[in-house]
Parts: sequence; structure tokens; C-alpha cells
Amino acid sequence: MKFSSKIQRCGLSPIRKFHPYVVAAEAKGRKVHHLNIGQPDIETPEAFFDAVRSFGESVLAYAPSPGVETYLEAVRDYYTGMGFPITCGDILATYGGSEALQIVLPCILEEGDEILIPEPFYPNYETFVHITGAAIRPIETNPDEGYRYASRDRIEPLINEHTRAILVTNPGNPTGVVLTEEELRTLADIAREHDLFLISDEVYRELVYGGQKLSSMLEFEDAAENVVVVDSVSKRFSATGSRVGVMITRNRELMAQAAKISQGRLCAATLDQVGAAALYRSMTPEYYVNLRAEYQRRRDAVVAGLTKIPGVRFNSPEGAFYLMVTLPVDDTEKLQYFLLEEFEDHGETVMYAPGEGFYATPGKGRSEIRIAYVTNPAELTRSIELLDLGIAAYNARKENV
Amino acid sequence: MKFSSKIQRCGLSPIRKFHPYVVAAEAKGRKVHHLNIGQPDIETPEAFFDAVRSFGESVLAYAPSPGVETYLEAVRDYYTGMGFPITCGDILATYGGSEALQIVLPCILEEGDEILIPEPFYPNYETFVHITGAAIRPIETNPDEGYRYASRDRIEPLINEHTRAILVTNPGNPTGVVLTEEELRTLADIAREHDLFLISDEVYRELVYGGQKLSSMLEFEDAAENVVVVDSVSKRFSATGSRVGVMITRNRELMAQAAKISQGRLCAATLDQVGAAALYRSMTPEYYVNLRAEYQRRRDAVVAGLTKIPGVRFNSPEGAFYLMVTLPVDDTEKLQYFLLEEFEDHGETVMYAPGEGFYATPGKGRSEIRIAYVTNPAELTRSIELLDLGIAAYNARKENV
Repeated sequence: MKFSSKIQRCGLSPIRKFHPYVVAAEAKGRKVHHLNIGQPDIETPEAFFDAVRSFGESVLAYAPSPGVETYLEAVRDYYTGMGFPITCGDILATYGGSEALQIVLPCILEEGDEILIPEPFYPNYETFVHITGAAIRPIETNPDEGYRYASRDRIEPLINEHTRAILVTNPGNPTGVVLTEEELRTLADIAREHDLFLISDEVYRELVYGGQKLSSMLEFEDAAENVVVVDSVSKRFSATGSRVGVMITRNRELMAQAAKISQGRLCAATLDQVGAAALYRSMTPEYYVNLRAEYQRRRDAVVAGLTKIPGVRFNSPEGAFYLMVTLPVDDTEKLQYFLLEEFEDHGETVMYAPGEGFYATPGKGRSEIRIAYVTNPAELTRSIELLDLGIAAYNARKENV
Repeated sequence: MKFSSKIQRCGLSPIRKFHPYVVAAEAKGRKVHHLNIGQPDIETPEAFFDAVRSFGESVLAYAPSPGVETYLEAVRDYYTGMGFPITCGDILATYGGSEALQIVLPCILEEGDEILIPEPFYPNYETFVHITGAAIRPIETNPDEGYRYASRDRIEPLINEHTRAILVTNPGNPTGVVLTEEELRTLADIAREHDLFLISDEVYRELVYGGQKLSSMLEFEDAAENVVVVDSVSKRFSATGSRVGVMITRNRELMAQAAKISQGRLCAATLDQVGAAALYRSMTPEYYVNLRAEYQRRRDAVVAGLTKIPGVRFNSPEGAFYLMVTLPVDDTEKLQYFLLEEFEDHGETVMYAPGEGFYATPGKGRSEIRIAYVTNPAELTRSIELLDLGIAAYNARKENV
């Protein structure tokens, strides 16, 4: 039996592929500290569980394909409250931010088409694009320039007759880059002038550490036809298992095309939408202030630790809960295998996501890693210390070979 | 901006597209009886809500990509209990049966490929196939032969070098056909001999009314590499809003390809899987006996009513909760508009799914409708009576024009 050429172009998640080695390390009694995955330890607000527990219907019925009304209204009010006026008709409820991409990309991409994505990027974008038959044209960035990408001279030379869209994550995963108002405007202008969709994955919106105004591509009314916002409750409310997101666009034709897929899969999960509506309704400004402060403490712990490691290069991240770090090693995947199979300090070791999987350009990212700072500061401090010790042990071993 | 040719080949759900006309009819004070949609009124077992209410974690975290362990084990035990030995590794948890198809089809289909599907078929299959770029080659059936399709002479002439798979729904939606043991064997043999995937959508497995042994394509060990079973809790446990299903296959390579997509979208919803596990664990043989008896009463009410309508042709369905009916009218879509916009009896009217949307062959099904018998017998009896009166009024009006 034959498999499609598209699925064969896809890879397994570079974040999850070390899982068997973790299992083996744990079987040897090692404690593995995790800097590799975006699962926060912050409690999901009780409002979610309360709403789910008090669900009063005796039949758990299909939700409407566009979404449960109370959920759509809660999302609308959240955006309107930030000064981005949208209607419920601009919103499609999805299974997390992931499904928003799984819906919008097949609507606009197919064989021969290209989508511009700044690299390094969230690796699952590659799967979602490859399944459509299209290709990613990476917008190259440079660690020494803090991975910034949103300028005309970097993007416009990449646009050709095959280009259909630009996809950005802001605040950035894996880089922690937060776009400035001027950069946002530049992206909107480029999309409008070149007649491209601008897909903006804004799931980390609230997690900014420089006092920036919370932003959304929805602010640019003149690019309303171009902009598609992807959002989710996963990170904002520490509810990654709830799988509730949205695709937002004021482009009526795109919404009509997307309805074909959303009707095809009937609806997103009813109870999760009920819970998500309650999350949005219950949230106060203090919630976000505290959430931001907590992640800032975590960021600061990681930055303080990294600063002590000789030869490490990085920029302090401005948002989200990730950063890319260049390590003084030949190959961070080899280092990861070493850390899981050979290294230990007091029975402990550490795990991160090797950088190569975040790049479309072959060979790039080999000295980089992505760190997710989703555990508490003490745990993060120890994790970075293990990284420091591991690098030294790895390089010492290599020099002795 | 351009949309993909694939999404443009997709249509809106023929089952959901009359929704605006229902809203308008209701606004005029009409009561609309529903024979059109597969949303049962049977209560979701309390076990689901109990499990969800007693979820004890404070962080609603990502589930593993392949599924929550207790859910996978519950599904495995359900199949093993029926005599179909599978392991947890053969099971992938999905967002309902729909996502099982959204995962398996892109793994095996692309431009130029063909998949054989007996028509009439569940219309959303068309969306899922078109998104991959492949085409449906319909296996033609005949109302006068009870829509049966599983014979070599009907299927083998359609197989060519582009054929990758056969997709069947058993028990059948929209036909109510239940495959015999001999027909199942024939399909397995054809798939094996021609090196095709055999995707078997078995979400209505328990709903058979002739005392048949419950079947699954998993019984054919010699076709283990070919068979992919799609299943879901939606209909079995009257929990359509929970969106929990499975893709099951013993083909390791297919499972490895599917993992690329399942890892890409991270996981299915955690709480729904916890609830679904409890559903499987709580179910006794009596539950299924009662469920079947209730749907049989409903089927019998529909059949009794239809028998009284002059000129109507149908076969009493053997399973699922649907049947196709040929009406004595020129066009059942026109009749549907008439029923919603002009007809009423004591302020009431009725809605079904016109047959054309269930066919890939243009022009077929125009005199047919699909009825879903998911409401109580009295309600169904009144619905069929309205259909009878509506047909008479429609044909009388036409003759007077």
C-alpha cells in the first residue's frame, strides 16, 4: 500500500521525538528536568471546572459548527475590550489554535504555493503546510540580530507569484520576539500591497514582559481582508488539554470557505467550549498581571542561569515563554542524546528541544536549542545548572576522544 | 487573494444548508419537525458527566498524542470483549470519527488518487477526500436492490492503478444497510488482493435490528494490514458533543504516518477522553439491548408511517438510524423548500435531508431523501404524517400551476 507524498514530507515532532530516551533514562533511575515542552504547571482557573461541572443538559449534543454561542460571545467581548471590534460572525471555534491552522491553510494553499514563515518557527507549522502540498519559504533571521524579521528588505525579496500568505507567531515561539507597533504595521502593509493572507498566531498575547500594549493584527482595519488571527485558551488560561481555540477573520469569503471544513467535522467539543466561555468571563486584569509576573520570574531565573554559562549566546526574551539559545557545542542533538544516555549529576539530567527542528533551511540551528520556561524558578535554576554541567562534560569528553 | 482549488471543490453540508430556512419558518411561528439530522434525544449516560465532574487534576494538561491511557485501554477492552484482539498501540484517539478520517485520508490520498465509496454516502466524506486532492469513484447502488454494494462484480471493475482505498459505513449511513458476514469477507478479500486500504466506519455498530452478531472489519486477520476502523462514542453513547473517536489499525506503517498528524495537533481533548473511558467501562450488555430496542421502536414507527404514503418506495433499514426513501415527487430539494416556505398543517411542517447531497454522481438521488429516526415514536409518526400531507400539497400545487 502506498502513502501520500505529502505525509512522507512530514516529520515527527522534534519536541516529542526524544520521549523514548527519557523513558529509558527514567528506567535507570535518572530524574529528567524538562526545558523542552510547553506544558505550564500553573493551575487551570477553577472557573473552567465549575462551568463543566454545572453543565445542566442531559444530552451532550453537537455544538453549532461555528461554535457555542456563549463561547463566541466571550471571545468577541475579550477582543472588543482590547479595542479590536469583531463580531461573532468573524469567529470560528476550533480544536485549539492547531485546528485553526488546519482549517485556514487548506483553504488557501495547495501544490506549488508558498507561504512565508520566519525561521526558527513552531515545528508543527511544517506538518500543517506540507499536508496541503505547499512549501514554506523561510524568512531568514539571525541570532545576533535577536531573530527579528518584520522588515521590508527581509520579506519582500521572497515574495513571488506563488506566495499566498505570511504566517507569524507573535509573541514568538520559539524566539520570544515581540513585534513592535512599527513592525506590525509593516507586516500589514506588505500583506495588503501584495494581496497576501497574513496569519497571525497570537496565543501568547498576554505574555509580554516589557510593559508593551497588548497587540493584535486585528488592529489594522485596512488589512481586514488579509488578516487571520489564530488564538487559543491553552496558554492564556493554562488549559492546554481543553483544546479550544479560534480562527478570527473579517474576510467573509475565507470564512465561507472555512465553513466547508468546520461543517464537515461537525463541531468542536461542546463542554470545552462551555468551560472556555467561563474562563474568558471570569478573568480580571489582575489575573493577567499575576500570570505575566509569574512568567517574568521564570524568564529571569533562566536568563540569570544562562548568563553564567561560558560561551552561551542568547537574547532575553520579550514575550511568550520560550527562548532560543546558541550553545558552545558542535551539535545540540548529539548533546541531547549525551545528556539522556550518559550524563548525570546527583542522578539528574536535563532536556530541551534541539534547534534544528525549528528551521526549514537544512543545517541551520545545529548549535541552537529552544528552552521553554514553564516550571518554577527553583526548578528552572537547577535545570540550567544541569545544562551548564552537561555542556562541560560533553565538550570534555569530545576533547578526550 | 486566491483560495485553493481543493476547498473550492468542497461544498457546504447538504444536511445543514437549510438552516436559514428553518430559522425563517420558526420566525413565522411554524413548528419544524426534524427528520434531517443525526442528533439523538437519548440521554448521555451519567457515567460521562460523573467522570468529568470528578476529574481531580488542578492543571488540565495536554493528553499524550496517541490518547489518554485509560481511554485507549477502555476501547481495547471493548473490542477484545467482542472477540477482536487489538492492543493500545493499534488505537489512536481522535476528535470523533470525523478526525479519524481527517487523519487517515491525507496519509494515503493525494492528487490523481481515487477512493471507492458506495453511494449514497455520508456527505462529509466528500469534504475529507477533496481536501486531499483525490477523487471519489462511487460504487453505484440501486434503491430497488436495497442499496447493497459489497460484491466483486460491482467493485472490481472500478479498481485501477489510481485506486488507493475503499471506504464503507457499516451499518450504513444513509441507507441502513448492514453487511452480511459474506459481504464483509468479500470486501476484505478485495482489499487484500488489490493491495488497498479498507476504511470501515463502524460508529453505528450496536444499532442492528435483525439479531445479527456485532461485526467489525477487524475480524479478518489476513487483511490486518489493509483494515482501518473508524469509531466514535457519539452515537453509541448518545454523546455527539463530546468529540471522542478512534482510528484503529494494525498496519504499523500507517500508524507511524498518522502519528505525524496526531503529534502536529498535539492531542484530543483530555476531559472528553476521561469521560469516554468511563462510558466504555460503565456499559453493560443491557445498555446496548435497551438502546437497540429503543431505536427499533423508532424505526418501526417510521416504517409504519411510510407504508401509508402512496407512491413511496423504501427498504426497512437493518441498522444505524437512517434510511433512504424514494418519494413520488420530481425533486426533493424543491419539496423541502416548499415544506419550509409554504406548507403547514396546524402550524407544523417537517424537514429531512434531500438525497442529491449523498451522491457523487450528478443528477442521482433527486427523488430520494434521507430520514434520521432519532426522536421518539410519537414525534416520528407525526413527522411522517406531515411528510405525507406535504407531498400531497406539493404535487397538487404543481398540477394546478
